[in-house]
Amino acid sequence: MKMKFCSECAAPIVRLIPDGDDHLRDVCSQCKTIFYQNPKVIVGTLPIWDDKVMLCKRAIEPRYGYWTLPAGFLELSESTWQGAQRETREEAGATVEEGMLYGVYDLPYISQIYMFYLAEVKDGLHEAGVESLEVDWFERSQIPWHDLAFPVIKTMLERYFLDRDNGTFSTFHETIEFRPRVHYNNESGD
Amino acid sequence: MKMKFCSECAAPIVRLIPDGDDHLRDVCSQCKTIFYQNPKVIVGTLPIWDDKVMLCKRAIEPRYGYWTLPAGFLELSESTWQGAQRETREEAGATVEEGMLYGVYDLPYISQIYMFYLAEVKDGLHEAGVESLEVDWFERSQIPWHDLAFPVIKTMLERYFLDRDNGTFSTFHETIEFRPRVHYNNESGD
Repeated sequence: MKMKFCSECAAPIVRLIPDGDDHLRDVCSQCKTIFYQNPKVIVGTLPIWDDKVMLCKRAIEPRYGYWTLPAGFLELSESTWQGAQRETREEAGATVEEGMLYGVYDLPYISQIYMFYLAEVKDGLHEAGVESLEVDWFERSQIPWHDLAFPVIKTMLERYFLDRDNGTFSTFHETIEFRPRVHYNNESGD
Repeated sequence: MKMKFCSECAAPIVRLIPDGDDHLRDVCSQCKTIFYQNPKVIVGTLPIWDDKVMLCKRAIEPRYGYWTLPAGFLELSESTWQGAQRETREEAGATVEEGMLYGVYDLPYISQIYMFYLAEVKDGLHEAGVESLEVDWFERSQIPWHDLAFPVIKTMLERYFLDRDNGTFSTFHETIEFRPRVHYNNESGD
């Protein structure tokens, strides 16, 4: 979001490259404060119970009605694991334990970093939060591959089943360089 | 940084918990825009050449004159590896190749996430940038353990030498829960 007014003194903002910098910044025309904008971190979990994976059906745009993993923006003063636990509680009503940082995804085209924890759900209990239409457990053969909300969810699940076949899980990192061509509900008007 | 004025309409900001939220936010008293603040990502490298590690002597506060690894804030539209390469070029004049995401550190007490890549420096070439007093290669026995800028740098180097002893490197994740007790130059007035 480009700033129009300075949040310190309310004067108009100009876009310029400050001395000694090499990026365009929002700078106050009056008090000269420089406002930096930085990528955001999204934290979530790949919740596991027995041999099943938990997915949530989105009750919000984009991708209303499609299946996703519980995830959301990391808050200030929160560790990524705390954030992942919070999102899983909020969106899926589930308590995750013994999480391991599993998938780290760079999505530079939207200035986001996803950090997914692989985590066990206590007793398999869940309850759809306000951002989910429903929450359910899926065996491998039941995964709705064509109704997943985002490419990063598909990639994450594929990796998980591959690692499960190999019997070994470790933290991995991938960069998704370009915006995948996906038709979103709210873009296509479907 | 707490906002005083709305960057959209210049009206005064109030701090409140919006409906359906559970965190205090900066909200415009006039146009009702909600301004979210999120943790920031710092990217850097652990530059390697032969059996040596590169360190940079800080030319800026905090911790002026102490040794660190090249690192800085991730920019919009940049992958973490691109950012790590950029910071290494800017601060140490070095070109890093074949980076592997190595250390991921949560520092929730300052709302930051560090992501360090382990990477080879082509020909070992370097040149101190404007934020470095000097840049040099260190063998293990030469590491200035008592003059490192930040605890995360010490932890990162200890991990590297341990992994090197074991002959295996993989991405790891640590959370540093509390602010370490370190006296900074600019706090102590030393």
